[in-house]
Amino acid sequence: MRTQPEEFHVFDTTLRDGAQQEGLRLSVPDKLAIAGMLDEFGVDYIEGGWPGANPNDTAFFQAMAEGEVPLKNSTLVAFGFTRRVGGKAADDPLTAALRDSRAPVACIVAKSHDRHVEQALRTTLDENLAMITDTVRHLKAEGQRVFVDCEHFFDGYRENPAYALEVVRTASEAGAEVVVLCDTNGGMLPQWMGDVVTAAAGTGAQLGVHCHNDTGCAVANTLAAVDAGVMHVQGTFNGYGERTGNADLVTIVANLELKYGWQLLPAGSLSEATRLSHAIAEVTNVPPSNRQPYVGLSSFAHKAGLHASAIKVDPNLYQHIDPALVGNDMRMLVSDMAGRANIQIKGSELGFDLSDRDVAAKITEQVKDAEAAGYTYEAADASFELLLRRELGQLPEFFSVLSWRVFTQSTHDQETDTECTLRITAKGESHRVVGEGNGPVNALDHAVRQALLPAYPVVERFELIDYRVRILDQGHGTDATVRVLIQTSNGRRAWTTVGVGQNVIEASWEALYEAYLYGLIHTDEDASPAT
Amino acid sequence: MRTQPEEFHVFDTTLRDGAQQEGLRLSVPDKLAIAGMLDEFGVDYIEGGWPGANPNDTAFFQAMAEGEVPLKNSTLVAFGFTRRVGGKAADDPLTAALRDSRAPVACIVAKSHDRHVEQALRTTLDENLAMITDTVRHLKAEGQRVFVDCEHFFDGYRENPAYALEVVRTASEAGAEVVVLCDTNGGMLPQWMGDVVTAAAGTGAQLGVHCHNDTGCAVANTLAAVDAGVMHVQGTFNGYGERTGNADLVTIVANLELKYGWQLLPAGSLSEATRLSHAIAEVTNVPPSNRQPYVGLSSFAHKAGLHASAIKVDPNLYQHIDPALVGNDMRMLVSDMAGRANIQIKGSELGFDLSDRDVAAKITEQVKDAEAAGYTYEAADASFELLLRRELGQLPEFFSVLSWRVFTQSTHDQETDTECTLRITAKGESHRVVGEGNGPVNALDHAVRQALLPAYPVVERFELIDYRVRILDQGHGTDATVRVLIQTSNGRRAWTTVGVGQNVIEASWEALYEAYLYGLIHTDEDASPAT
Repeated sequence: MRTQPEEFHVFDTTLRDGAQQEGLRLSVPDKLAIAGMLDEFGVDYIEGGWPGANPNDTAFFQAMAEGEVPLKNSTLVAFGFTRRVGGKAADDPLTAALRDSRAPVACIVAKSHDRHVEQALRTTLDENLAMITDTVRHLKAEGQRVFVDCEHFFDGYRENPAYALEVVRTASEAGAEVVVLCDTNGGMLPQWMGDVVTAAAGTGAQLGVHCHNDTGCAVANTLAAVDAGVMHVQGTFNGYGERTGNADLVTIVANLELKYGWQLLPAGSLSEATRLSHAIAEVTNVPPSNRQPYVGLSSFAHKAGLHASAIKVDPNLYQHIDPALVGNDMRMLVSDMAGRANIQIKGSELGFDLSDRDVAAKITEQVKDAEAAGYTYEAADASFELLLRRELGQLPEFFSVLSWRVFTQSTHDQETDTECTLRITAKGESHRVVGEGNGPVNALDHAVRQALLPAYPVVERFELIDYRVRILDQGHGTDATVRVLIQTSNGRRAWTTVGVGQNVIEASWEALYEAYLYGLIHTDEDASPAT
Repeated sequence: MRTQPEEFHVFDTTLRDGAQQEGLRLSVPDKLAIAGMLDEFGVDYIEGGWPGANPNDTAFFQAMAEGEVPLKNSTLVAFGFTRRVGGKAADDPLTAALRDSRAPVACIVAKSHDRHVEQALRTTLDENLAMITDTVRHLKAEGQRVFVDCEHFFDGYRENPAYALEVVRTASEAGAEVVVLCDTNGGMLPQWMGDVVTAAAGTGAQLGVHCHNDTGCAVANTLAAVDAGVMHVQGTFNGYGERTGNADLVTIVANLELKYGWQLLPAGSLSEATRLSHAIAEVTNVPPSNRQPYVGLSSFAHKAGLHASAIKVDPNLYQHIDPALVGNDMRMLVSDMAGRANIQIKGSELGFDLSDRDVAAKITEQVKDAEAAGYTYEAADASFELLLRRELGQLPEFFSVLSWRVFTQSTHDQETDTECTLRITAKGESHRVVGEGNGPVNALDHAVRQALLPAYPVVERFELIDYRVRILDQGHGTDATVRVLIQTSNGRRAWTTVGVGQNVIEASWEALYEAYLYGLIHTDEDASPAT
């Protein structure tokens, strides 16, 4: 196994190639949220999208350039193509868009498979080379660092190795820092990787690799390329991507850090992998795979029985790594979803003393029951704190809800109208209010705000900034249990609450109620300057 | 790459190790149904379970012995352990259960990791060897063929290679036809495989391999072992299994047949892979992964509009194999990156002639506008077809909706109650119905079904099998636009519709309305026998 080279890039393309996944669409706020998480994980490069070709991506780069998500660990990359056939890079609007993105690095795609040049690009092999040279030189002259993705490289190498290598050489000689060998159609196997990478290394280029999972070997293909000398690996969080997906960057990094013994991320980052993988899945709204290597919910879960006592003696007999290294947990099925130790740690993080074993055990039971019913506290710290306070007798009563009703109708003119009524008691006074909104939850939000305003003017500052619904038991259609997560901000900080039920309005109301309650509990500290 | 050896086993353990997956429970009828499908696929061996240890498994073997599912291609295998410490195989009830299963082959697990012998089995290294010899000899004397699984072999080899190899030699010399090297904890990487397998082959045993996916390399590890000389591969359909799952046998076989050029299954079987993978998922009730190599719904789906025109020229430029080889299909996804070429291809897939450029351009504009508003057609083929029909004047009117109202309330007793009223005209008759449900959409679904039933009894068969809500523009809280996807089945096929709006009920209603409309349009074809 190779030892860690001096320079090695972890290059994430979740926001660009990952977004090609069927059913996955990322808004600009989604992209900004994920960029922050990727930076927190500490990847070296974040490929953010294709500016100029896609208005969302252009807006994302603008927001990044304006410092909306300051990057501490990562460098932003803009994706693009070589200039148009027969044109000049200097005149090409898409090439200009790369510069205008203000991303420090441009990663441009070049064709490296002769048939693709001739049939898809409809130009000559020489013009394709000229396009590469022109585009790389122009971008560098404009002050950007340049990486080149060689599209369909491995298929191209199989059919016309000389031309495929010529593309690599051309890109490198034009000034590309890294030339990335892309298995665009994903048909490679690991045992074919070494020879091809070695041949490409013969051009003198610094190499990267970009794999897809069509043979189920994306991770292994990437590792085989690493063994053969590449210094740059591309992948996506959770293996998102077109068709069978891209190589899962989480798995690759975990393998390199834990199996190869390399250090790629900032110290301590790998143990955030499970949390970040799930947090990114919340943003993409793609249900996480329980079987995902390292970070899946089931990935360190053992059906008890036969092994249970041996596992107690030495858990390492039954797991390939300590799951804490990736922020995951061994779980014995039929028992612990969340262990007591976990709850105690989490409680003290929030400033609650749970050192009393009985109290901690009782709370752990409650969390288990709630999680079995569909609640999740990983993403909903605020609801977790309310659960703790309820159990510890530290839950102030700011208001109480007597009843609510929501009414939605659509009549012949196709106008949909929603209104709700709400009865609340706050500071000894009862309020009956009517709210309207563009939907039932919006109407309830307006009503609760109106009802609380006389007693708690601070609610004026509360804003619901995210609202998401997930169906938990797929296969039951509209009978299914739904989980609602609501994120609320008071302009200084944001908090997330959770509600669960078969009725989406009821579940939303639960999360909404907790959102207001948590906000009121924390009003005073938030009035003081942020620290 | 290795050429196909004379003898090679495809060994399926879906019914035994696959059933260890979290949440997966197989009844005896489930196991019988899956055994029939595995035999149809044509695997060489079907490991059916652990007779004697598990009443379900004992019953399964009994049913198989009674010919309930006659096997045409496969041989049945019963799983078991070496005899008890300090006992005799001839007196061991679990060893007797193997014989009583009447399976032609017994596959027994032996410990091959010294620490497991000492700490989990609590016996000496020598006694473990004696247990292997005694059990294998006894089973053979009773007339069964015997395979031996060496549990934790790779971890054992790392710590005590001499002992791990001694276990292999002992099993082989006692008469095991195949000695299977098991990566029980799943921590292996492909580049470590060759040396270990070569060392084990030095014992003279015929070798097999059994991998788990904890490093994301189960398939690649299996192939690396094949390259190093094993003549037997174990895996499960769809990669079911404990933790991250076992090696996916479908992917392994497809790689060996299509990439290595081997012939492992009966001729024509591989093209049943997609159908059988999904059929087995129906039995296990585990939602199939759209990204599963070869057989996933998305595995040959293309989103990029840029490539659409080139794909028209030569689809093989953009796929690593012809999807028909595994019974899958190329699909063009309609998306905001889609151009006219994409829409035309998609239209003709659905049987609509969009060769008229003006019509195609107009529809493309509509799709773009709708996608900008939040609709997505890549997941909602049925709504896309309705859009086409509307534009082409081919949309029949089965019913029209005059008005609907939904009413949800929660009063002091915390009970939430939902009801709706709906006015529909169908076949000239007007119906006013009231529906109730555990939520607003569920209530609307009940009401529309009730209103349409007199005119269209077929709606009785419609079932909402999935309901998903996605918030589109994060950052606007409950003001946000929501997208609802509804999947409906009539028991023969499923279709997906989409609705968008600021009001979750309105968006759900739109998707629900289209679900019923599409189902009614396609009633006739679904009533005729499947072809």
